[in-house]
Amino acid sequence: MTHDTRLGFDRETLAQRVVFAPGAAASRLADELRRLGGTRVLLVAGSAEAELADRLTADLATRPGAGAGPVVVGVFDAVRPHVPVAVAEAARATAAETGAEVLLSVGGGSTTGTAKAVALTTGLPVLAVPTTYAGSEATPVWGLTEHGRKRTGVDPVVLPRTVLYDADLTATLPVGLAAASGLNALAHAVDALWAPRVDPVDTVLAGETVRVLAEGLRALVADPDGPGAPAARDRCLYGAHLSAVVFASAGSGLHHKVCHVLGGAHDLPHADTHAVVLPHVLAFNAPAAPEAARRVAEALGDRDAVAGLVALARDLGAPTALRDLRGPDGTRMREADLAPDAALVAEAAPPSNPRPVAPADAEQLLRAAWAGTDPRGDGER
Amino acid sequence: MTHDTRLGFDRETLAQRVVFAPGAAASRLADELRRLGGTRVLLVAGSAEAELADRLTADLATRPGAGAGPVVVGVFDAVRPHVPVAVAEAARATAAETGAEVLLSVGGGSTTGTAKAVALTTGLPVLAVPTTYAGSEATPVWGLTEHGRKRTGVDPVVLPRTVLYDADLTATLPVGLAAASGLNALAHAVDALWAPRVDPVDTVLAGETVRVLAEGLRALVADPDGPGAPAARDRCLYGAHLSAVVFASAGSGLHHKVCHVLGGAHDLPHADTHAVVLPHVLAFNAPAAPEAARRVAEALGDRDAVAGLVALARDLGAPTALRDLRGPDGTRMREADLAPDAALVAEAAPPSNPRPVAPADAEQLLRAAWAGTDPRGDGER
Repeated sequence: MTHDTRLGFDRETLAQRVVFAPGAAASRLADELRRLGGTRVLLVAGSAEAELADRLTADLATRPGAGAGPVVVGVFDAVRPHVPVAVAEAARATAAETGAEVLLSVGGGSTTGTAKAVALTTGLPVLAVPTTYAGSEATPVWGLTEHGRKRTGVDPVVLPRTVLYDADLTATLPVGLAAASGLNALAHAVDALWAPRVDPVDTVLAGETVRVLAEGLRALVADPDGPGAPAARDRCLYGAHLSAVVFASAGSGLHHKVCHVLGGAHDLPHADTHAVVLPHVLAFNAPAAPEAARRVAEALGDRDAVAGLVALARDLGAPTALRDLRGPDGTRMREADLAPDAALVAEAAPPSNPRPVAPADAEQLLRAAWAGTDPRGDGER
Repeated sequence: MTHDTRLGFDRETLAQRVVFAPGAAASRLADELRRLGGTRVLLVAGSAEAELADRLTADLATRPGAGAGPVVVGVFDAVRPHVPVAVAEAARATAAETGAEVLLSVGGGSTTGTAKAVALTTGLPVLAVPTTYAGSEATPVWGLTEHGRKRTGVDPVVLPRTVLYDADLTATLPVGLAAASGLNALAHAVDALWAPRVDPVDTVLAGETVRVLAEGLRALVADPDGPGAPAARDRCLYGAHLSAVVFASAGSGLHHKVCHVLGGAHDLPHADTHAVVLPHVLAFNAPAAPEAARRVAEALGDRDAVAGLVALARDLGAPTALRDLRGPDGTRMREADLAPDAALVAEAAPPSNPRPVAPADAEQLLRAAWAGTDPRGDGER
């Protein structure tokens, strides 16, 4: 906002309790479940998280006076990516059969999404214990997949009432995956600055998200097993949380439209695509969004926002060219894809974008990202 | 937070819809009332706000199809400072008699407080239209006065579901009052940095509060009738809102304990007391809270936080010495009051304060504020 323009916006803040308890998720869990009122707990956790979930909930069954406190009455572990409708229905049936009063999800985005699908039809409160930087636990967005199509919606009833964060639970995330996933969260924050519903509070929190993630990711990648790693993971997880809060409020902008088009057309790896594309979108929008660029630069501690992002991506070892990426079946994006992809990007560009996006603009942006041209405009990196 | 310490905190975010609609409160009101579900509206507005409230609600009765939309079914105007219990009971009776489904408050802290008192016992939703920088509309705190004693409590049910801000409604606030009231809001943000429940989100929003208020107040005081005044009032009102959000989450710290002691002992003017005391509390705490001092300095665009506050107070024409202030009956604070007041301050200092507050510390702090000594430590200003 410039100094002499009026200040108008609508903002919906949603209710959520957030507990950051480093190393203490297990010891805090019973009290946090108790706050939600019910005692009959349905645990939602994929088989990969089974051992972790067992450790977390072990105390519930054994502690003195457990009869009056929360008890796990059922476990749903058939979690699948993108929450197929059949999975959601099976989880709802388990909730009904066990008489569950509270849903406890332990896992990443798919697990949280499964608990949300149950909350959507039952209204049961969700306590989420995230183990990744996916951020789903901080949004009221649900998604269900049927016949290969994903339906999404927004309903405050699916927003977890409480989120219990413990970065020690993310210690098994491979550092490369943490970096990619963290950059994805960072991209959400940058992209929020020109997103359709962005408000001044989002703008401030987006700047903080970038600052915290850049600091945390750099420290984690520099020494993933060192004495500073637990604190670095705290910052990454906190940044991922903030990023999701900002995304839930502001929505997503041009960057995510670009990535959505590329993901749909070529099935490129999600997080790597974000890492490559973001500096180019920022370079494209910055001249028309000087305030956004200033915030990103400040958050990255760099004189220039694009240069700051390029330096961060380099420090994190992120890829820099779309043509180097491979889809799951080995396919890659070819030069001939640029024009048709650009047409789709121009069509999908949000009206809120600070600059209009003509097909030729989109093609220039995509070409630079495809070839790995330096987004600062100095040619190849 | 330093880079290598773990990050732990609890945060409760409360649900609220906030609409900033400069110059457009009247045209937005019907839709915002409709979102709250009910159509029978009890208007709570003191007699000083009667004309303003009439203008705001005029459209409700006359617009086409008003029968299906919100209608004012009653008006409660017997608003009094600090919400005497008898006033609360009268307002509740009016709500019951008129079958009100929604409470619409138009006014400052006492008016919002009266609507909150009705919400407390009836659960009716409140739509608040603030006309001052009091900030009550953004907190779940209620207060009731009986036999000269104020009882306060916290209940999410009293938090207005929607706040409709329109800074044009604050245009009649005398500029001196706006400056004093804005500095009070700024003091809440600074004091939050070491308050009992402060979390990292509060810290970021507190910095933004200071930045926005300093900018808005300076512009407003410099040219209160100029072309930039409406935008300056937007920033002041937005800063007052943020300040209340931060206060509701973090609570208040040493600064407010000092002001509470002085207010109770000498009935000094509230806002002026804040303006005098804040730089001295900051100067006392800063050595033990370098991160807080850094944030305040950055927000004020000054190398030093205390110097930045001193410069702001000077630009706003705020008083600098407690001995210059007068209570409503002309009384003033005397040098002999310093020791007994200091004992009370030391006793009331929150355990969260970054430095312990011995009676001798408190007396030194109070003496400097009383005499108007430069808080930067260079003697008299």
